[in-house]
Amino acid sequence: MLISQLGEFGLIERFKKVIPLDKTVIKGPGDDCAVIAYNKDSYLLMTCDMIIEGVDFTPRDDPYLIGRKALAVCVSDIAACGGLPHYALVSMGLKATAQAGYVDKLLAGMLSIAKKFRINIVGGDLSRASCLTIDVSMTGAVEKKNLVLRSGARNNDTICVTGKLGGSLYGKHLSFTPRLKESRLLVQNYKPSAMIDISDGLVQDLGHLLKASGKGAVLYEDCIPVSSQARSLKQALAMGEDFELLFTLSGQKSKQLLRRHKGFFPIGTIVDQAQGVSLVDARGRRKSLTQTGFRHF
Amino acid sequence: MLISQLGEFGLIERFKKVIPLDKTVIKGPGDDCAVIAYNKDSYLLMTCDMIIEGVDFTPRDDPYLIGRKALAVCVSDIAACGGLPHYALVSMGLKATAQAGYVDKLLAGMLSIAKKFRINIVGGDLSRASCLTIDVSMTGAVEKKNLVLRSGARNNDTICVTGKLGGSLYGKHLSFTPRLKESRLLVQNYKPSAMIDISDGLVQDLGHLLKASGKGAVLYEDCIPVSSQARSLKQALAMGEDFELLFTLSGQKSKQLLRRHKGFFPIGTIVDQAQGVSLVDARGRRKSLTQTGFRHF
Repeated sequence: MLISQLGEFGLIERFKKVIPLDKTVIKGPGDDCAVIAYNKDSYLLMTCDMIIEGVDFTPRDDPYLIGRKALAVCVSDIAACGGLPHYALVSMGLKATAQAGYVDKLLAGMLSIAKKFRINIVGGDLSRASCLTIDVSMTGAVEKKNLVLRSGARNNDTICVTGKLGGSLYGKHLSFTPRLKESRLLVQNYKPSAMIDISDGLVQDLGHLLKASGKGAVLYEDCIPVSSQARSLKQALAMGEDFELLFTLSGQKSKQLLRRHKGFFPIGTIVDQAQGVSLVDARGRRKSLTQTGFRHF
Repeated sequence: MLISQLGEFGLIERFKKVIPLDKTVIKGPGDDCAVIAYNKDSYLLMTCDMIIEGVDFTPRDDPYLIGRKALAVCVSDIAACGGLPHYALVSMGLKATAQAGYVDKLLAGMLSIAKKFRINIVGGDLSRASCLTIDVSMTGAVEKKNLVLRSGARNNDTICVTGKLGGSLYGKHLSFTPRLKESRLLVQNYKPSAMIDISDGLVQDLGHLLKASGKGAVLYEDCIPVSSQARSLKQALAMGEDFELLFTLSGQKSKQLLRRHKGFFPIGTIVDQAQGVSLVDARGRRKSLTQTGFRHF
C-alpha cells in the first residue's frame, strides 16, 4: 500500500499505536506539542516542524521570510498549548550551490523570531541536500494550570479564532506572527477548554480538536471572519496555513473576552459528537461539512 | 560567495557569532549537544541530526537500518556529553510514492533504538519530500558532575577511543551501537576531561576537540586501532561515520581504565597547541597531520 492511500493522518495513527511511552510523558504524539513532566509547577513542551522547498515555500520566496517561517510555525504550536517557547534546534539541508548571502538571510529571518519571542537557538545540524529543507525543534514550558490540549472541549462551549481566515498561501503564510500573546492572554484570563493552531485549514483542524474532545460542532457562516486575501468562503474554511489559534471556552468566558478585547471571533458552538460538523447559513439552513484541508499524502 | 567556499565549519562559526543566548544556556552551538540549566543536580542536553537519502544513506539501504541510524546518531551525541537520552521528536520528509511497508520498517528501526536506550518518541512531523529526509531531535539529561565537553583536555592527558576505526561507510555506519554504556562507565568512574563522537573522521573530530580545548596532540601510528573493514590507515584517520567516542583523561585514570576494561584504545597524548597535531610512526618519525575528514560543503 502506498502512503498516499493510507494518508498523512492514517500514517500518524499507525505510529501512535506502536510507540511505547513511559509515565513522564503527559501527552505524546497527537497534539500540537508533546507534554513532558518537568517540575512542580510546569510541564516541558516539545514540538518540531519541517519545511521543504516546493512544499512549504518556493525557490523565489524571500529567504528572510523562509527562515522566519521555519521558527514561527513552532512558536505557533507552543502557543496552541498555552506555553512559552525557550530553546530551538535548527537542522538545515542546503544545496551546495547556495550563496552565503542567501543563508545569512535565512538566519536573519530566524533571528527575528528568536529575538521577538526570546528563544535561544542553541544548536543545529547542517547537511547537503537537493532542495532547501529546514527542520526546527523547539522546547518550551507551560504552567500546569495553563496547559491547553485539543481534548477539553465541552458541549455549549463557544468556538473562537484569533483572526481572519483564508488566502494565507497568497502571502501571509510566510509573514504571519504566531499568536503567542493572544494565547497567554487566553490561558491566564479566560480558561480555554481546548486549543489548536490552524495549519491545515479551519475545517480540518477543527476536526482534529473535535475528534480529540469527542464532540461535534455547529459553525455559523456569517460569523466566519474571511480574510481580505481570501477569494471565497471555501478558502477561509479549508485553505490552510492560517496559523491562527482555534479555541473553545465557556459561553460566559467568551462573552467577557469578546467584550474586552478586539481580534477574537466567535464562529460556532460545540455540540454532541453524534451531530457531526455543520455550517448554518444566514437563512438558518444547515449543511454538513466534510473535512477538507491540506494533507501531505 | 558560495557556501562551498565558506565550508561547513565556516558557516557554523558565522552562525555562532550572531546568535544571542541567555544565561540559562550553559553551552550553545559548537559541542555535541547544547547544555541548558535544568535543576539543582542536572543539565538538560539537546541535539539534532538530519540524515538525507543520497548523503547519509542510499535508496537501496535497508529502511530498518536507516530508521535505526536516524536515532542512533543523536544517542551518540548525548553519549559524547556523558548524559542519558530521554525524549525524541522525529521529522520525516517522505516521497509520496513510498510504500507503507517501507515506512513501517523505518519506524521499526527507530523503535529498536528507542527501546534499547529507553527513549520516548513523543512527537514528530510528516511532510512530502523529493528524497527521504529524517531529522531527529533528542533531549536528555546529565548530572552536573558528569558533564563532559570538548573543551576540557589538559597537557599530558591520554587520548583514547572506544573502538576500531575506519571502513564504517562499507556498512557499520548503518548498524553501529552508540557508545552510551561506555560513556556512562567513563563519566561515573574515570572523569574524562574532554569527549566528542567521531562522525567526520578521527583527525577532523580530534581537531574540533583540540580547538575547543586550546591544545595540540601527538598520535602514535601503531596505536590507532584499525577496523577490519578499513582498507588503509588513512581510512581509520579520516573516513568518518565511526560513531566511536574520542576522549581524553589523565594518565593515571587511563591506566586504571585500560587495566580493568576491554574495548578502549589509547592512541596519543595531549600537548601544547603550538605543537599542532602530529603522527609518530613505529620508527619514531613524526609527521604533521593536516585535518581531513568529511565536510558537507
